[in-house]
Amino acid sequence: MEEVNGVPKLMDLLDEPVPGVGTYEDFNTIDWVREKSKDRDRHREITSKSKESTWALVNSVCDAFSGWLLMLLIGLMSGALAGGIDISAHWMTDLKEGVCLNGFWFNHEHCCWTSNETTFQERDKCPQWKSWAELIIGATEGPFAYIMNYLMYVCWALLFSFLAVTLVRAFAPYACGSGIPEIKTILSGFIIRGYLGKWTLVIKTITLVLAVSSGLSLGKEGPLVHVACCCGNILCHLFTKYRKNEAKRREVLSAAAAVGVSVAFGAPIGGVLFSLEEVSYYFPLKTLWRSFFAALVAAFTLRSINPFGNSRLVLFYVEFHTPWRKTTWLGHYPVLEVLVVTAVTAVVAFPNSYTRTSTSELISELFNDCGLLDSSKLCNYDNANVTKSSNELPDRPAGDDVYTAMWQLSLALVFKMLITVVTFGMKVPSGLFIPSMAVGAIAGRLLGIGMEQLAYYHHDWVIFRGWCSPGADCITPGLYAMVGAAACLGGVTRMTVSLVVIMFELTGGLEYIVPLMAAAMTSKWVADAIGREGIYEAHIRLNGYPFLEAKEEFSHKTLAMDVMRPRRSDPPLSVLTQNGMTVEDVETMITDTTYSGFPVVVSHESQRLVGFVLRRDLTISIDNARQRQDGIVSTSRVFFTEYTPPQPPNSPPPLKLRGIMDLSPFTVTDHTAMDIVVDIFRKLGLRQCLITHNGRLLGIITKKDILKHVAQIANRDPDSILFN
Amino acid sequence: MEEVNGVPKLMDLLDEPVPGVGTYEDFNTIDWVREKSKDRDRHREITSKSKESTWALVNSVCDAFSGWLLMLLIGLMSGALAGGIDISAHWMTDLKEGVCLNGFWFNHEHCCWTSNETTFQERDKCPQWKSWAELIIGATEGPFAYIMNYLMYVCWALLFSFLAVTLVRAFAPYACGSGIPEIKTILSGFIIRGYLGKWTLVIKTITLVLAVSSGLSLGKEGPLVHVACCCGNILCHLFTKYRKNEAKRREVLSAAAAVGVSVAFGAPIGGVLFSLEEVSYYFPLKTLWRSFFAALVAAFTLRSINPFGNSRLVLFYVEFHTPWRKTTWLGHYPVLEVLVVTAVTAVVAFPNSYTRTSTSELISELFNDCGLLDSSKLCNYDNANVTKSSNELPDRPAGDDVYTAMWQLSLALVFKMLITVVTFGMKVPSGLFIPSMAVGAIAGRLLGIGMEQLAYYHHDWVIFRGWCSPGADCITPGLYAMVGAAACLGGVTRMTVSLVVIMFELTGGLEYIVPLMAAAMTSKWVADAIGREGIYEAHIRLNGYPFLEAKEEFSHKTLAMDVMRPRRSDPPLSVLTQNGMTVEDVETMITDTTYSGFPVVVSHESQRLVGFVLRRDLTISIDNARQRQDGIVSTSRVFFTEYTPPQPPNSPPPLKLRGIMDLSPFTVTDHTAMDIVVDIFRKLGLRQCLITHNGRLLGIITKKDILKHVAQIANRDPDSILFN
Repeated sequence: MEEVNGVPKLMDLLDEPVPGVGTYEDFNTIDWVREKSKDRDRHREITSKSKESTWALVNSVCDAFSGWLLMLLIGLMSGALAGGIDISAHWMTDLKEGVCLNGFWFNHEHCCWTSNETTFQERDKCPQWKSWAELIIGATEGPFAYIMNYLMYVCWALLFSFLAVTLVRAFAPYACGSGIPEIKTILSGFIIRGYLGKWTLVIKTITLVLAVSSGLSLGKEGPLVHVACCCGNILCHLFTKYRKNEAKRREVLSAAAAVGVSVAFGAPIGGVLFSLEEVSYYFPLKTLWRSFFAALVAAFTLRSINPFGNSRLVLFYVEFHTPWRKTTWLGHYPVLEVLVVTAVTAVVAFPNSYTRTSTSELISELFNDCGLLDSSKLCNYDNANVTKSSNELPDRPAGDDVYTAMWQLSLALVFKMLITVVTFGMKVPSGLFIPSMAVGAIAGRLLGIGMEQLAYYHHDWVIFRGWCSPGADCITPGLYAMVGAAACLGGVTRMTVSLVVIMFELTGGLEYIVPLMAAAMTSKWVADAIGREGIYEAHIRLNGYPFLEAKEEFSHKTLAMDVMRPRRSDPPLSVLTQNGMTVEDVETMITDTTYSGFPVVVSHESQRLVGFVLRRDLTISIDNARQRQDGIVSTSRVFFTEYTPPQPPNSPPPLKLRGIMDLSPFTVTDHTAMDIVVDIFRKLGLRQCLITHNGRLLGIITKKDILKHVAQIANRDPDSILFN
Repeated sequence: MEEVNGVPKLMDLLDEPVPGVGTYEDFNTIDWVREKSKDRDRHREITSKSKESTWALVNSVCDAFSGWLLMLLIGLMSGALAGGIDISAHWMTDLKEGVCLNGFWFNHEHCCWTSNETTFQERDKCPQWKSWAELIIGATEGPFAYIMNYLMYVCWALLFSFLAVTLVRAFAPYACGSGIPEIKTILSGFIIRGYLGKWTLVIKTITLVLAVSSGLSLGKEGPLVHVACCCGNILCHLFTKYRKNEAKRREVLSAAAAVGVSVAFGAPIGGVLFSLEEVSYYFPLKTLWRSFFAALVAAFTLRSINPFGNSRLVLFYVEFHTPWRKTTWLGHYPVLEVLVVTAVTAVVAFPNSYTRTSTSELISELFNDCGLLDSSKLCNYDNANVTKSSNELPDRPAGDDVYTAMWQLSLALVFKMLITVVTFGMKVPSGLFIPSMAVGAIAGRLLGIGMEQLAYYHHDWVIFRGWCSPGADCITPGLYAMVGAAACLGGVTRMTVSLVVIMFELTGGLEYIVPLMAAAMTSKWVADAIGREGIYEAHIRLNGYPFLEAKEEFSHKTLAMDVMRPRRSDPPLSVLTQNGMTVEDVETMITDTTYSGFPVVVSHESQRLVGFVLRRDLTISIDNARQRQDGIVSTSRVFFTEYTPPQPPNSPPPLKLRGIMDLSPFTVTDHTAMDIVVDIFRKLGLRQCLITHNGRLLGIITKKDILKHVAQIANRDPDSILFN
């Protein structure tokens, strides 16, 4: 054993004598144990060096603070991007309706903001803002103007969505969808090169604006999480500590996911909890604190860029990927698909004022509690019996406009539900949070108004008696909308704590926490009774990503011996011996098999385990030795032992490969219950585990074997044997 | 291998043929893997039975909801107890000053609440409320009345503290202190019988009221966490699922800790994060959600019981255990110690109005921003230049009373700092949150007033120029106090996210989040530079609890072979062989050694590992077999194998012990880095791990070995080799 300063050298891998050894290929899973171990070694080296010179000390302090600096940068960059997206999307959404004469770059609100001729009552009408009908045919009213506006609305929508889908297809296919399921998979240790790259970032940012502006039933919140993670990944390249270590980089990405939700909703605490509850796999407490910091920086950057934005409701969505869509013929023509869906959306949405406006404005209106002065149709109550002096508005009979609004809302509800299912999974950036919240909010508001009128006209019914006297404010329809939104979102994503915290940060009131919690809980229970999977898990499963769910418990009663390879009928396990093989033997074994690693044993007879060698490292090392090391030929003997015995004269020099061998492979006995094995894989982030019986090597279980086994059992006993 | 319904029987332990096998002794560590495995087996059994009959189905549904029911009960019980404690402590604190003539059970506020002769300005003065001087010598003013009141104040304080310390000593020694360090240790898997029992609950609840009322510089928040955990533990006995499983019970206790903080501060989200960040060891996401539910139930129960309590600032404290106190002679006389400290506290506190009131009222006053009508001395500003119409109060010159208040506050600061250090660790229930917050708040308010006056008189200075024009409201002293409180508390406990969330729930304003965060971060960094340990960790270390810190990374470069037993000079490892020993051999081995378990190998020559047997299980089984099983004598052969070979005639019947053997002991190779081993111990909650080399059993590492090793390294290289 090599010794440096009396301390035994452990990880020969770290010397990296051969470039490429210790790295990963695309679509492979990282080895968490090795990565964390590498980082600890790096940290140890910096710490021990720091005592030698002032420069090294400065270096070590910089290293310690680099994590915080990185968080600051991610917060600033994501906040700035989110601000840009908000402003652009707002402007382009208004562009579908008209243009500002003072400058085409003003949106409707800003255009009229500067006008002197605007009253508070009609703050969205001003001479500077021209609708397309006004500009083109010079009329503001009448059927022709309506048709002109309608036409322009549909045309702009089609243009935006066409641009979006074309850009995604041409430059960054990874930019489509919400990205949250993929980020979840990446955080669990999978490698998808380019998924968080700079092209994805640029294209996703641009196409997100286009997709949102086109009026499709999608949200920008899921994609914002993807954008923030791209920022995090790109900024990681500035720091060696994070660039070179896959485990450390994933800590940063967890924080970036929190940042994404934070800028999407203006909810920093909710963002951190979302990252913890929904997205992250490895989430040490250090990351909790750093995520919080980054999330706050981002929220404040956003607020300072877009101070007039309705920062309390800057919503956020998730992707909806319904299984049957995978098979429609339209799915094979992504551009056509997007255009058709956009056309349908625009044509149906325009006539109904509740679908024409942006979904976040709709939700905002639905959450709103009616004051006396509200001009919204939903607030058209009969105020005859109300004395102006009282602070509290009693329940009032609804006016005609409320009934009109209810009809329109019912139609909007049906339309939103249908079109949302179709929209998600299209090849444009899209999220599901806002559409689900909108569906829930509409349903909630409708129920709320219904209850309110019931309570007004029938306050002697049993359900109202005792707590709802005439003239009191018993029912708040806005609260029903809020609870509905939370319930619908909770059913789709199965978020719980983070959902309640986000809703409470959005609405700013702790007093609503009980109904929100009851809604989140009920919707989770009901949804779980129908199917255990949330939208992310379903998406991950549909795409076949190697994700080992950490939340659900595997509780089938099998043993490691039932899952391990080789099975009874299979040929025996391919193993290397520590000193009995030639280079040719090893090369033959590599060619004949496709395994990604081989155990090394003392001898075939004893099957006593020495270590584990990765196929990739083995190939690289042998190729390298053949090219650079003198005398290595096919008959050279390969040694994994510490000391090489003296070779007979005239024999070729031996190839020593102990350096690339993992001396501490994980082993469990064949009698270990699979639930424990699954637990070990999850908690330690293993790629493979060797199985022994009475000290002899018997087989191997890889992460893939476990995923297959879990899927198999889930299919065999669909009713909750698998999950508790 | 036994097979039941084609599924191999795994855990023979679960049959529990012998009572006592599979349980733990006091002051031992639980085996998380075994406990979780037991629970999965139980769950599996219930699920598979549920298909057989309706009754079993109902049973399985009840089982699934029992966790939620338990949470509800814990929330209700803890909330009710906290409400009772608040009301009693408030009443008894006022009893030190006087008594209500309408009924002695009214506190000062309630007494005057009902009085008609009270004006809003002087709402704490009413004829029904008599100070002791008034009652006894009939005078309200003058030196004699002052002395009389002073004397009564000291006497009541001494009486309360005497009762508290006596009750703790006589009935429940575990009731002293805050209990958080012990709960942290228990949650990590340690067993301390009676620490969360019913006597501790009763005595801690009563003595907490007494200790708080006596005016000692301590808080009720840490103890409330202990009280909530006692409730959780006691209520666990109602449900078999939680009563019989140590791992499941710890999930409940994690939630109970969140409940404790929730009732202490009225901060349910902060409570959950506190439990996650500071206290818990094993915190699955399911627990996160349930904790949140329980915390909310508790907060609402408390509010409905004590609606007049200042629920926004119902503070919460932590224990402070200064190392040197361990050696004072006073520490050997706990009752005397408490009386002396109480006497000193009462005598010094009475003359200063800022120390005489309860600490939570003091903090509340310090956080308060001065309005125009505030009657507090701290708000005695010169309002000559203020126009009443403006909503915002500009900076104003301080009046004389402010300067008096500053002197008094400075004295209070010094006194609080000194007396708090002495108070903690006394044998009464005590927490540190309120005293630390008070110290920080006083310092912050003093700094704030200083800055305000500087800004008023010198607004042309460089530091004020540009943002502080004359007549503007530049400095808010109340905010300084809040930030100071957060910083001081953060330095003591090293809480970060949970601290910010608690402060923000306490004060109800998201806008202060940036200064609060900066304060928490700075204080953590500064405190970490001085010493890495928070108050809980220090306490755990001082008491020598076997707690493996999960937050700090172990990064010393040693290998498993350097830590494992036996060392090179030690006698070889005591192992059992699977078929070569007699009952007498085994008994001799048990008598000769003190190890808590023995590995079982195929033979002494091969040293190939078969399994692991716990000493306790072995002793119980042999004793049981000797008593109940015919023919088991000292010469009976002991078999750990699956099949027992036929015995020669006339030999005594064999003793089969495979049932108590753990067939899946954890093993790692001798070359495994210790940081990985420590990680495995933490994440899987192991008690021991066996060490192999090339397939041969070499040694064992127990949790104790790891703790010793960590401590050793910490002592050898004090400067941060150990922790990064």
